[in-house]
Amino acid sequence: MRVIILGGDGYIGWPLALSLSKKGHSVMIVDNCMRREVDLELNVESLTPIRTIEERINSWENITKIRLQYENINVAEEYLKIKNLFSEFRPDAIFHLAEFKSAPYSMRSAEHKIKTIGHNVNAANNILSAIIESNCNSHLIHIGTMGVYGYNSQKNTFIPEGYIDVDMHYDNNFLEKKNILYPFNPGSIYHLSKSLDNLIFQFYNKNDKIKITDLHQGIVWGSQTTETSMHDDLINRFDYDGDYGTVLNRFIIEAAINYPLTIHGTGEQTRAFIHLSDSIKCLELAMSNPPNPNERVRIFNQLSETKSVISLAKNIERITNCKIDFLDNPRNEAKKNELEAKNDSLIKLGFEPKLLNDEMLEDLLNFAKIYSNRCNIDKIPSRPKWN
Amino acid sequence: MRVIILGGDGYIGWPLALSLSKKGHSVMIVDNCMRREVDLELNVESLTPIRTIEERINSWENITKIRLQYENINVAEEYLKIKNLFSEFRPDAIFHLAEFKSAPYSMRSAEHKIKTIGHNVNAANNILSAIIESNCNSHLIHIGTMGVYGYNSQKNTFIPEGYIDVDMHYDNNFLEKKNILYPFNPGSIYHLSKSLDNLIFQFYNKNDKIKITDLHQGIVWGSQTTETSMHDDLINRFDYDGDYGTVLNRFIIEAAINYPLTIHGTGEQTRAFIHLSDSIKCLELAMSNPPNPNERVRIFNQLSETKSVISLAKNIERITNCKIDFLDNPRNEAKKNELEAKNDSLIKLGFEPKLLNDEMLEDLLNFAKIYSNRCNIDKIPSRPKWN
Repeated sequence: MRVIILGGDGYIGWPLALSLSKKGHSVMIVDNCMRREVDLELNVESLTPIRTIEERINSWENITKIRLQYENINVAEEYLKIKNLFSEFRPDAIFHLAEFKSAPYSMRSAEHKIKTIGHNVNAANNILSAIIESNCNSHLIHIGTMGVYGYNSQKNTFIPEGYIDVDMHYDNNFLEKKNILYPFNPGSIYHLSKSLDNLIFQFYNKNDKIKITDLHQGIVWGSQTTETSMHDDLINRFDYDGDYGTVLNRFIIEAAINYPLTIHGTGEQTRAFIHLSDSIKCLELAMSNPPNPNERVRIFNQLSETKSVISLAKNIERITNCKIDFLDNPRNEAKKNELEAKNDSLIKLGFEPKLLNDEMLEDLLNFAKIYSNRCNIDKIPSRPKWN
Repeated sequence: MRVIILGGDGYIGWPLALSLSKKGHSVMIVDNCMRREVDLELNVESLTPIRTIEERINSWENITKIRLQYENINVAEEYLKIKNLFSEFRPDAIFHLAEFKSAPYSMRSAEHKIKTIGHNVNAANNILSAIIESNCNSHLIHIGTMGVYGYNSQKNTFIPEGYIDVDMHYDNNFLEKKNILYPFNPGSIYHLSKSLDNLIFQFYNKNDKIKITDLHQGIVWGSQTTETSMHDDLINRFDYDGDYGTVLNRFIIEAAINYPLTIHGTGEQTRAFIHLSDSIKCLELAMSNPPNPNERVRIFNQLSETKSVISLAKNIERITNCKIDFLDNPRNEAKKNELEAKNDSLIKLGFEPKLLNDEMLEDLLNFAKIYSNRCNIDKIPSRPKWN
């Protein structure tokens, strides 16, 4: 297949590009290195020493004889370039991973709110307009998040896959039955931007019959995949800072450098998790199984399991004897929540989730130790307050 | 009260500014004359000869000795100017009428889609960020539309005011009861942008306790109010073109120039209507009745009545003997729909709807005839196709 990966230099985009190209697909990476610019802004680096996009691509060609194509385009600001690229490349599938993806970053200041909403919304709208205008009939695959629904403390319920049957009532009188998008209740500007994406997808799918799969992903952990491990020049990102580091990866890096595991709040927040290599598999499954013509937007939950933050910390404490620090929670979120989420759709397509185990955690811990001298502990605390 | 009207040079903003200032409020108009730029782009003019914003303001001062303050700011692009203005002026109420407001215009091309989504979303986000950062605790009043829900052909139901009680079911098993935002199903990019506004409002209200009233308005008709009628220099817009003209105003202008009334499709589309002076009254009622602290976003339907397009056309045919032309519908919408919408909230606050009658229609018709020589009939057809 002909595949464009928007955001193909990123944490998921890069290993996805390698995996797909190795399987014989013709891959075009589009990236304006926005994520690298954020590192410069925050004065922080990936724990792993990532190479420039050109070095990565050249190294992959040296090793595999496969040439990844690459264009530097800002998808939120350069509509005409995107449209022309789609017209010429004629992709069968377009992965849209070119968004600001950090909740704390989105809450740093008014400027960060404006940047996150502006970029993510305009990017989605540009991409969909370009699919129509280039007439390329591509399948758009986007990574969303279950965070669009917020996390509440309700027991005995779960997050369905995008849609829910409802009986509507007004003043206790039954009005009508409907099947609707599961209601959005985002907790940060970043999660809000992904909620907005969902309404944009719904519109373009209804009005223009665009084929769209939106993967509502849990928190991804891990750093390397089979392909990124093939050479140091191909190494993937591994973020630990208070803005871009996600909880499990942060715990592992903290344990690797003998820094106490930082829990914000009680740790009774439950979240969904998926390993990076599982995430890549799910993206490939979504690509191989496009929606039918006239099918509404496909929304799949992309997760392997749900875990509370405290249970993850205790697991790592058990295998490393590290300390745990309970800090004030800068986020505006429930102290404790239940979370169960359906993942039937990807399972039906053949997804076999790899569940967290001590061996996987220890492997990642040992990997983190190799680069522990690159860690700047000043960058570990999460500082943005959410209101 | 201290009041800022974003979009205060527009069809609703201008008469609102006059009415509020006459009642003794201190009024600041913010407008970048974007709507006038669209006239230049489309090579069309309001049927009425509107004066420049400076001439309007000077004329109002000459007549009433009241000086309207004015700033030329693009609210979607000039965040810092907005924030500084809020910090200095410290408005009690901010009316946000500074959006692209035409569905056909939003569907003209990819560029118009991008412009409409980009402007409207960034404007809402800028204004809310500026309310937080300027710490002005203002009440934000926005004009939304019932079009965010789409129009379906379901009988015996109605559009509630923003929220609905639902029983959620999954695989025929009851999950939970919730009160949710009534589900969005917008039919154009313009209506999509207003749906996105709703999610943005929900977030900032929840996270930052911003007081917000969103008025989901029907189609406004009429041109003049008591204040705009006081002098020719104060005259209000009156649009008839295929992009910005709305159905009833177009029918009246068509009848005034002996052009057949243009019905797109069967005319069995039912829509909500409200006279311009009623719209101004509702906006003032919303301002006088701000939400309580910690109250969720208030969503009121702002309409006087619902009517089918064909019934309006027949009413005008009856009083003028004009012809009716049935044209292909360039919009992607249901041929026929029912529409009932609650307007209890504004009624409770004292709103007394002025229902359409022959005298009002005849008055407007006579007003239109005065300017009929300014009508460019080439601009009447609505050309943008929606897919």
